[in-house]
Amino acid sequence: MGKFEVNILGCGSALPTARHYPSTQILNIRDNLFMIDCGEGAQIQFRRMRLKFTRLGHIFLSHLHGDHCFGLIGMISTFALVGRTGELVIHAHPQAEQVFRPQLDFFCRDLPFTVRFEPVLPNRTEVIYEDKSIRVRSLPMIHRVPCSGFLFEEKVGMRHLLGDMMNFYNVPVYRRAAIKAGEDFVTSDGRIIPNSYLTTPADPPLRYAYCSDTAYNEALLPIIEGVDLLYHEATFGDDAEALAKETCHSTARQAAIIARKAGVKQLLLGHFSARYENEQQLLEQAREEFAPSFLAREELKIILGR
Amino acid sequence: MGKFEVNILGCGSALPTARHYPSTQILNIRDNLFMIDCGEGAQIQFRRMRLKFTRLGHIFLSHLHGDHCFGLIGMISTFALVGRTGELVIHAHPQAEQVFRPQLDFFCRDLPFTVRFEPVLPNRTEVIYEDKSIRVRSLPMIHRVPCSGFLFEEKVGMRHLLGDMMNFYNVPVYRRAAIKAGEDFVTSDGRIIPNSYLTTPADPPLRYAYCSDTAYNEALLPIIEGVDLLYHEATFGDDAEALAKETCHSTARQAAIIARKAGVKQLLLGHFSARYENEQQLLEQAREEFAPSFLAREELKIILGR
Repeated sequence: MGKFEVNILGCGSALPTARHYPSTQILNIRDNLFMIDCGEGAQIQFRRMRLKFTRLGHIFLSHLHGDHCFGLIGMISTFALVGRTGELVIHAHPQAEQVFRPQLDFFCRDLPFTVRFEPVLPNRTEVIYEDKSIRVRSLPMIHRVPCSGFLFEEKVGMRHLLGDMMNFYNVPVYRRAAIKAGEDFVTSDGRIIPNSYLTTPADPPLRYAYCSDTAYNEALLPIIEGVDLLYHEATFGDDAEALAKETCHSTARQAAIIARKAGVKQLLLGHFSARYENEQQLLEQAREEFAPSFLAREELKIILGR
Repeated sequence: MGKFEVNILGCGSALPTARHYPSTQILNIRDNLFMIDCGEGAQIQFRRMRLKFTRLGHIFLSHLHGDHCFGLIGMISTFALVGRTGELVIHAHPQAEQVFRPQLDFFCRDLPFTVRFEPVLPNRTEVIYEDKSIRVRSLPMIHRVPCSGFLFEEKVGMRHLLGDMMNFYNVPVYRRAAIKAGEDFVTSDGRIIPNSYLTTPADPPLRYAYCSDTAYNEALLPIIEGVDLLYHEATFGDDAEALAKETCHSTARQAAIIARKAGVKQLLLGHFSARYENEQQLLEQAREEFAPSFLAREELKIILGR
């Protein structure tokens, strides 16, 4: 199956620091780019990571706090200058259009592409995007303003043909697509060869969940169960558990408890508060709950694999 | 007299690059900070240059193109988070308030300080700000949208007392402020000692002119004559003179001709197009016209002196 990469453009929180840009990620799924959140400076990091502007068709905004969307207008302006032409779809809370449309109308007149807003309703999980190879679902977050996380899932792919069996049964090339899709093969003398003799199962679909910003929320568990990679906000450490609760954020430990209970494969921590000089203590606290935890950092590229 | 520093936070143009942030400067005049333009990432550079958020009271926006103002909303949001409390005044084209007020209302509810917009009318020069030590005038720019440059001038200071003469004539301390302001001294026996015997002249006031974005404009010459430092946009080189004209920008050579004809002391070039890998050729072309030209760069701090 194809490429599935998570690129971290920024993993700080509300206060940008010398170390962290605010929240921005780009998924590269078979060379189509999907952006999640778009903090100030996103376009600079986009360029720095050598990703292709023309490959981006969809942006998913978790919520309308500035550290998740102030980079949008600058990035769209730049797209206009570099001659990007494909439609750009922004999946966000229904209020997003009334917030950003006036800015687009003022600063980005005569865009060489259309910008379309697709409403994402908070407090639920539903399919908000689908193409031939992936499906994106919204995830319910608990935050001070309406907020949605996102689950990116590959669709089940084709079964793999066994070359030896193709030869053995003399399967003509024009029949192979159907067999990859699961059909049996009928030989010229009428024998039925079950598909399971001819193929091995399709690769299990890769799944990536983005959960930010949110307080600890066990309602997520059944939806994100077993994902290959969970990005969960870990704004604070144990030292600021009360503050996390008050501001509807999570501690690194809480993120790790969610990861463990959901049986995910790996946990990526991010959305770090500016109060930490480095995030080592957050990592240690998370690993006490869930060993395969690691820290996001700017310009990190994670390749999901099977 | 006091400190007069020009800090370059960004000197690129519309397309941010890995080398340049968009236009942003901060003047530090006697520890009061004045921002000129506010491109995306301004707050990051602000922090990186270790300038104090609380010292900024006034922002001057030349025009409402994104590369000169997209950093505003993020910076103001951050000011709120770090507990800045003083009023913030934004001097800008009258349209600025209708553009930014809705964003402030949406993203920055309950700011712990007021944001006030002061209209700057384009196509003229007039005093737009004044305090006890400086005066700011608008400058007419020629650009595709209404645009103003800015001239920052120190006010004439106090004359310097000659210590020997103070002793010789036994000038009491309570009379000295008046003498610094230019008054003569009357001795106890009625003799009038002219001020010129008692003092040396005040320091000449420092003057800084910011001219961006603009096409070549000789109307500026009498207003910026003899300034200590002229920042003039130099978006293009000789290779793109036609493009400069078409887009209402200047070449480095044109900037230098303005500098020479205005008899300024030094020329600082900036607002560089992303088309140049480095700006050495722009510098060389400028120096052919005006030797004391130099290139702006991020994190450059220039101390104006006498």
